[in-house]
Amino acid sequence: MKTIRVNASKEYDVIIGSGLLDSLGQKCSSLLGKGRAAIITDSNVAPLWLDKAVASLKNAGTDVITYVFPAGEDSKNKETLFGILEFLAENKLTRSDFAVALGGGVTGDMTGLAASLYLRGIPFVQIPTTLLAAVDSSVGGKTAVNLSAGKNLMGAFYQPELVLCDTDTLSTLTPETFADGMAEVIKYGVIFDKELFDAVKGGNVDDIENIIARCVELKRDIVAKDEFDKGDRQLLNFGHTMAHSIEKCSNFEISHGSAVAIGMVIAAKAGAKLGFSSEDCTDAIVEANKNNNLPCVCGFAPEALAETALSDKKRTGDFVTFVFPEKIGKCYLKKIPIDMIKKIASNV
Amino acid sequence: MKTIRVNASKEYDVIIGSGLLDSLGQKCSSLLGKGRAAIITDSNVAPLWLDKAVASLKNAGTDVITYVFPAGEDSKNKETLFGILEFLAENKLTRSDFAVALGGGVTGDMTGLAASLYLRGIPFVQIPTTLLAAVDSSVGGKTAVNLSAGKNLMGAFYQPELVLCDTDTLSTLTPETFADGMAEVIKYGVIFDKELFDAVKGGNVDDIENIIARCVELKRDIVAKDEFDKGDRQLLNFGHTMAHSIEKCSNFEISHGSAVAIGMVIAAKAGAKLGFSSEDCTDAIVEANKNNNLPCVCGFAPEALAETALSDKKRTGDFVTFVFPEKIGKCYLKKIPIDMIKKIASNV
Repeated sequence: MKTIRVNASKEYDVIIGSGLLDSLGQKCSSLLGKGRAAIITDSNVAPLWLDKAVASLKNAGTDVITYVFPAGEDSKNKETLFGILEFLAENKLTRSDFAVALGGGVTGDMTGLAASLYLRGIPFVQIPTTLLAAVDSSVGGKTAVNLSAGKNLMGAFYQPELVLCDTDTLSTLTPETFADGMAEVIKYGVIFDKELFDAVKGGNVDDIENIIARCVELKRDIVAKDEFDKGDRQLLNFGHTMAHSIEKCSNFEISHGSAVAIGMVIAAKAGAKLGFSSEDCTDAIVEANKNNNLPCVCGFAPEALAETALSDKKRTGDFVTFVFPEKIGKCYLKKIPIDMIKKIASNV
Repeated sequence: MKTIRVNASKEYDVIIGSGLLDSLGQKCSSLLGKGRAAIITDSNVAPLWLDKAVASLKNAGTDVITYVFPAGEDSKNKETLFGILEFLAENKLTRSDFAVALGGGVTGDMTGLAASLYLRGIPFVQIPTTLLAAVDSSVGGKTAVNLSAGKNLMGAFYQPELVLCDTDTLSTLTPETFADGMAEVIKYGVIFDKELFDAVKGGNVDDIENIIARCVELKRDIVAKDEFDKGDRQLLNFGHTMAHSIEKCSNFEISHGSAVAIGMVIAAKAGAKLGFSSEDCTDAIVEANKNNNLPCVCGFAPEALAETALSDKKRTGDFVTFVFPEKIGKCYLKKIPIDMIKKIASNV
């Protein structure tokens, strides 16, 4: 078991290890007192882990209500968000109660947003059940839902009280969903940590507890420097400008992780051509992707990708901030004119 | 013209005076730079003040887009909120742009919430066009919309960049809407400031600029002590526990200000009976209400008011925090068992 202390606008622990779900109830009652728990989860995760979570809370003397929504990115919308909010209101939850997000990124993002909005903020606990959620959305306090016009266009910065990452839950992931998470792990390696990159580039993930812990530490440190995403934190968008376009162009058929894997390759290729990145970055990322069952190319037209990218929220006026790898283990931010996005997308 | 500097999690000015709308564009461009402005307003305010606001912004070289929603508390819901959010997204607003709330409390609350959520936060400027909005919702950063289960159950704490209170806009208010604002002015007097109370208890409101400025100062000071509403700020809820019930029981036919006026009388009567308040509070509040065209009673059954009050968001577990007047100019918070709400409501 590893515990990482996160020091954002609120201090909290990310605890990573096997069998942690059994201690949920005890941990919540010592941290949050006698309030009721509202567990929010999706239709994939509910049959696997909901009973265990409920039992643990009840054993600790906590009353529990549960809300299950249909699994999938399609649910990350205003209807589901308001379903959760009305559910909390109908059950008359108060500020002494708390929400529990049990699931992947969609569940965490929406539960966090609902918790931030309900009564202008109630506490919430996050239990990521996917590798992607464990290494990405469990730290940093970014919550969101999609609007018709684009992904994550509506959200809030809101920190959990506790993140409990039970590595047992990863055993029920499909290989594709596990690979999705590895795309983010590779991303952390490229941006910050050649050692981490080297550890996972061959596809060996035996020591997942330490891999997650390292990613959480890296994200913790960058978020501490820039909680509200106005500076260095934007490094975490490496591969993401194109990834969001790819997801959108595929009507969200291509998963976030696969899209990030492809987006990293595009950014590295473009960086090399523009003289911003060392030549060998692309090959290294392609190799790491392949060994971790991740794609390196998509079939979309560069024009379509560029157009979609320009509706992305990271745009500020006539420039976009783009992340290029300098070498494996070091990326940097570059403000580029929006026209250059077309050139970058042509490396698809 | 009066300028009050507010020092919340963000510093900003509340400027109060006649003819200020003409300087909107110049003030926004010097404060917020070259971004686009999205003015959000309602169907009552648009014909009166929208052209003036647009002209001022355009004269300063700012591009403007406008969104008008149907006036009324009925619009303070998720549909309108999402209408605003999708409008901002369709127009591809970025974090360099800003929203302008032109209107009363409903417009300010919803625009503020939309601004806090869009891209996880863009700047916004508030132009209160009612007395109630000027003295109440323009300071404090509370934004909200109603859920099916109750008023203001969903919201965020989010501060504007600037509040511009053009007292000329008050000239177009109906006497009822003006009186609504006076209910909050009387409230500030009862909670904090006997001098303010004495100045307005006879119904004389010639010096509205100074009355607004005093209320803004009082609210600024209490919010500075307790931005996130966990302590003394709850004093501002004087009259509000019952007011929210009255509004809801009337299906929002009774205005917020009228409901607060009645709620203050109920709280004062109950306080006197329970030995918490001096006997003469009730008479003084009744007199001030009457002289300012405000009601003192409503026809709802105490049981209905109590039941509705218990679904209010201020409830924390088995207790509610209720505000009683000790005397005019001084109120205090008292944690009371939820059962006592029934006794209080019987003073209707």
